Amino acid sequence: MERITIIEIAKLSGVGVTTVSRAINNHPDINEETKAKIMQVIKENNYIPNNSARNLKLSASKTIAVLIKGITNPFFNPMIKVFEQEIQRKKYSLILQRVDEKQDEIEVAIEMEKERRLKGIVFLGGHFSYSVDKLNQLTVPFVLSTTGMSAESELNNFSSVVVDDFKESYRMVDYLCKQGHKKIATITVPTDDVSIGRLRYEGYKKALEDNGVSVNERLVRFMKEDIEGYSMDNGYAVTKELLESQEEFTAIFAIADSMAIGACKAIFEAGKRIPEDYSVAGFDGLDISYYYNPSITTIRQPVEEIAEETIRILFDLIYKKTKHSRKIFPAELLVRESTAGISG
Amino acid sequence: MERITIIEIAKLSGVGVTTVSRAINNHPDINEETKAKIMQVIKENNYIPNNSARNLKLSASKTIAVLIKGITNPFFNPMIKVFEQEIQRKKYSLILQRVDEKQDEIEVAIEMEKERRLKGIVFLGGHFSYSVDKLNQLTVPFVLSTTGMSAESELNNFSSVVVDDFKESYRMVDYLCKQGHKKIATITVPTDDVSIGRLRYEGYKKALEDNGVSVNERLVRFMKEDIEGYSMDNGYAVTKELLESQEEFTAIFAIADSMAIGACKAIFEAGKRIPEDYSVAGFDGLDISYYYNPSITTIRQPVEEIAEETIRILFDLIYKKTKHSRKIFPAELLVRESTAGISG
Repeated sequence: MERITIIEIAKLSGVGVTTVSRAINNHPDINEETKAKIMQVIKENNYIPNNSARNLKLSASKTIAVLIKGITNPFFNPMIKVFEQEIQRKKYSLILQRVDEKQDEIEVAIEMEKERRLKGIVFLGGHFSYSVDKLNQLTVPFVLSTTGMSAESELNNFSSVVVDDFKESYRMVDYLCKQGHKKIATITVPTDDVSIGRLRYEGYKKALEDNGVSVNERLVRFMKEDIEGYSMDNGYAVTKELLESQEEFTAIFAIADSMAIGACKAIFEAGKRIPEDYSVAGFDGLDISYYYNPSITTIRQPVEEIAEETIRILFDLIYKKTKHSRKIFPAELLVRESTAGISG
Repeated sequence: MERITIIEIAKLSGVGVTTVSRAINNHPDINEETKAKIMQVIKENNYIPNNSARNLKLSASKTIAVLIKGITNPFFNPMIKVFEQEIQRKKYSLILQRVDEKQDEIEVAIEMEKERRLKGIVFLGGHFSYSVDKLNQLTVPFVLSTTGMSAESELNNFSSVVVDDFKESYRMVDYLCKQGHKKIATITVPTDDVSIGRLRYEGYKKALEDNGVSVNERLVRFMKEDIEGYSMDNGYAVTKELLESQEEFTAIFAIADSMAIGACKAIFEAGKRIPEDYSVAGFDGLDISYYYNPSITTIRQPVEEIAEETIRILFDLIYKKTKHSRKIFPAELLVRESTAGISG
């Protein structure tokens, strides 16, 4: 990890990173003298451009596919970056394949396996409730990463890396209860959804129960099916409707930060304040939840660690070092400006 | 375009979209009666699950690659979605390939072309300043989409879809000047960068000149090279430093919304208000620029239209209906809460 980076090479050469990149890649738009100087610095420091396109040649037939449900969700962005880096480090190449909400990811994977001679597959996001029969149609190793699983699935038959969505959601709602909130709304998934969203909803219910608060069904609000799931637009539409319903609440827990931000917008538009009038809590720990005004109280998932562990397990499977492996990472409650206690 | 959607099938069947999806995909977790009912509704309405994995089989050997510089930039998310839909509609399949900031995208494309027998390539983002010689190494049609081009490039030799970054940036800074601002800071790219960022900086300079304001170099702030480009973190770091420098300014124009949001955070942390103390303007028109508090004044790029036109041109090239095509879309100035006039 102490290897010198392109940024340091740029500094030592007195040029920008782009210029160093051009020198390495024999780009036409670079002064020959500058190039010679940079190449000298590179040589002196034993710099290896590890993410270079050169690697592609070596690895073209060794391909890992990452199948993503919900590629527009910013939650996946830092994970994709880690996948890319780790897979290139192993001298494999990466294909990203978006899977539509209504597509069967196993079918997609089976087709890709045939066409592209894959060495491994990562399923990212979505929910997984296939029978063992169907999973057995896959002949290459695979890992489920931040993928929800229905109770029917036989956990011991495949590898996965997740957080405990039930427990972490419980943690958030328990915190809100301990702050004195009794009327806590939630924005969650429809009841026929068996994804991680469902587990987060179960955590909400259990936390209320354990705090002696009975669930008010009118405060349980489902994402709109005609708007993209887990989006700001969806959180906005649901919260606007909730506010207009006149049902009383003091806090709202959205099962994703994006929806929490949409909720904030609806609350501001109604002329209300956060957290003075309503506390708002999210889930995921997106960068924007920190940068938002007010910053959003959330459950931070360790996305980089999850992504690294996913690749570690996948290569253990490829190298037959393990048969199956399941890893649950702890998440973290981040109390920020968007929530406050109430007396009463 | 009048085809019935899965959402409508779900409504007509009285179930959720997920359940319809299960019925279509022979999912084990569905009641047989429910499934029969859904399949009946599907039959009656001639619903065709067009994004189904079935299509993959037909199209496996007809592949379009989309090479993305800066995949973590949320600006690309809605574009990727359009690419995916349009390419599947043509019964082709899509490979997304992330290109690292320091990678040579042409080399990556050449390798992919060999390995995957591509029919076409979209280059998304980044900047492009290759010689015609190098471009001629590509044997399949390609389109540059929202990609910056250096002056050296011979525009007539390739196809591209862009906004006029110079003109749109000019529009924003001209608006700020007309609001009475004379001390306008900018967060932009380092001077050795020839990307779209450079064009946006040139627009800033020209607008100031035309409004009789001379450029104050101390208000021209470059993205940090050791932080991810065009990110909230970068905008935050740069603005914090600017505020600490005590250099006076009344407005700040970040050449990307993400950086504008970072700038807002730094301003709030310094105990200042937006727009009362500082006006903040961005560029791109990300969804979050609308949802942020305050909402961010920005230049909205018509991302869906850009993505659709990119695919249209690519298929015209594939079908040899055109030799080269260049399309420039107009963008839109959205004046929102983060900017205000000053008297002065």
